Amino acid sequence: MFKNYDEMLAEAKSYSPMTVAVAGAEEESVLKALKRAEEEGLVKPLFFGGKEVILKLADNLSYKIEPSSLIDSGSPEICAFLAVQAVSSGKADIVMKGGIRTDILMKAVLNKEYGLRNRQVVSHVFFIKLPDYEKFLALTDGGINIAPDLPTQVEIIKNAVDFYNLVGLDLPKIAVLAPVETVNEKIPSTLYGAALSKMADRGQIKGCLIDGPLAFDNAISAYSAKEKNIHSKVAGSADLIFVSDIDMGNGLFKGLVYFGKGVPAAVVLGTKNPVIITSRADSSECKFFSIALNVLYAGRLRDRKLSE
Amino acid sequence: MFKNYDEMLAEAKSYSPMTVAVAGAEEESVLKALKRAEEEGLVKPLFFGGKEVILKLADNLSYKIEPSSLIDSGSPEICAFLAVQAVSSGKADIVMKGGIRTDILMKAVLNKEYGLRNRQVVSHVFFIKLPDYEKFLALTDGGINIAPDLPTQVEIIKNAVDFYNLVGLDLPKIAVLAPVETVNEKIPSTLYGAALSKMADRGQIKGCLIDGPLAFDNAISAYSAKEKNIHSKVAGSADLIFVSDIDMGNGLFKGLVYFGKGVPAAVVLGTKNPVIITSRADSSECKFFSIALNVLYAGRLRDRKLSE
Repeated sequence: MFKNYDEMLAEAKSYSPMTVAVAGAEEESVLKALKRAEEEGLVKPLFFGGKEVILKLADNLSYKIEPSSLIDSGSPEICAFLAVQAVSSGKADIVMKGGIRTDILMKAVLNKEYGLRNRQVVSHVFFIKLPDYEKFLALTDGGINIAPDLPTQVEIIKNAVDFYNLVGLDLPKIAVLAPVETVNEKIPSTLYGAALSKMADRGQIKGCLIDGPLAFDNAISAYSAKEKNIHSKVAGSADLIFVSDIDMGNGLFKGLVYFGKGVPAAVVLGTKNPVIITSRADSSECKFFSIALNVLYAGRLRDRKLSE
Repeated sequence: MFKNYDEMLAEAKSYSPMTVAVAGAEEESVLKALKRAEEEGLVKPLFFGGKEVILKLADNLSYKIEPSSLIDSGSPEICAFLAVQAVSSGKADIVMKGGIRTDILMKAVLNKEYGLRNRQVVSHVFFIKLPDYEKFLALTDGGINIAPDLPTQVEIIKNAVDFYNLVGLDLPKIAVLAPVETVNEKIPSTLYGAALSKMADRGQIKGCLIDGPLAFDNAISAYSAKEKNIHSKVAGSADLIFVSDIDMGNGLFKGLVYFGKGVPAAVVLGTKNPVIITSRADSSECKFFSIALNVLYAGRLRDRKLSE
């Protein structure tokens, strides 16, 4: 598996450009990221949104947009519908959120008629390469599932394991996050930690190593794990932090982004084609790397399909 | 209010040395922090724990301990009892956790006979000075209260406001953390955010500015708050992140400590004397600054008592 953004980018570039359907393209940082991604040969965008605004923003960025790739599309709901339909009909490979609300795009993605869901649960994984951590650190689910029950948690983990296996990591180390490393009935996250690690031991979840409950420091610092006498194949070198509710994950991840000096990227899992969701306040660099990561993901999904 | 550790240290040093009762002093990083604090004129320690081990560890650090300040005390429970009793009887000003478990010390601190509680709720506040944030950022409660109900949340905030007012900040800006900045019935933290900010508006909580729900980025980044069109006196420049459960707070804070390159310090509130609780894996520098912060707090508590 790629160890840094350079490696990730190189792997993504090994594929011919993917067509990205952008829902609500009238946002400067999205266009900036797409311009760079197009220049680097990663994507060919299809823009859905208000034609005039998009052309004006693109012009400011000296971004030349082919008229045939711009579909004047009215409301956010219509942009979302058209962009998702472009993917489900095979005209595009990836759908990307532009300047519309996440819930509007996700409603179209999850639509039963023309939507993209192909697994039981759709989930979200954040990735970040921090200067002080030797590999990518990921977190799921800090973006979509609010307070999943245990069966849903298992599906969220299975989604992530499938992704890791696809991008070349056979046994990702998954830390189930809690405020302490000991089991305490009053703290549900510690019970989930125990349950999920035992499920991995018993073969109910395969293709990964799971340990929990682990506090954040135990998960990522070998020193901290040692000081706490934690003997674990995961502690100190987690690939993925699993959070049992969105509250635990969202703030933690944003803290890492804002003060850890890393660039984040995200994937949505459980859909037959990649879905790129970034936040309005994310930098265009973050949006660019999310595009690259999803191009790589789309390529690997296609490789697997071809080999089946 | 102090803006960085130098200012905090200078304010703490304006008091004559405080007596610190250390429960379970047989831990190297605790002794190292106490040595520095004693050399800088902040404290005079009273050591409770295994005499021989403490003397040996101190010797390795070239730390000369007066025999009269070392009380050979057997089990962790007895260390905790004696250290807390030293404070409640007036022999010491501050109690500090050494190498014993937090729950053992807190049981003694909360004991109804000889304990130290003097407010409705005992709570925990983490402080950190991050290189990329212009002032201290604090978080409550990521250490003691697990999943407080609304009345308990109000008491946790009141404890923090009392502390801020005491150390010289009249209107601390408090952000109620959630994964999103919009109210969503399915996400309790967003409802707590709405409730607590309205309670501040109505004068049910005084001495502070509260806004919520705010996602972490909206709370600390003016850019992010602006991108999200959030108009708020708190967003972008929060002093204190309020978390409605320990899961949300603990991981976030540890993320800031491990990847944000700041030094943390902590206070326990709701007790008549300061209680220093640090984690075994915390650096001795973190322990030193926690001592300094609590010396300052002890001094201000004494000043207020004398002025009453």
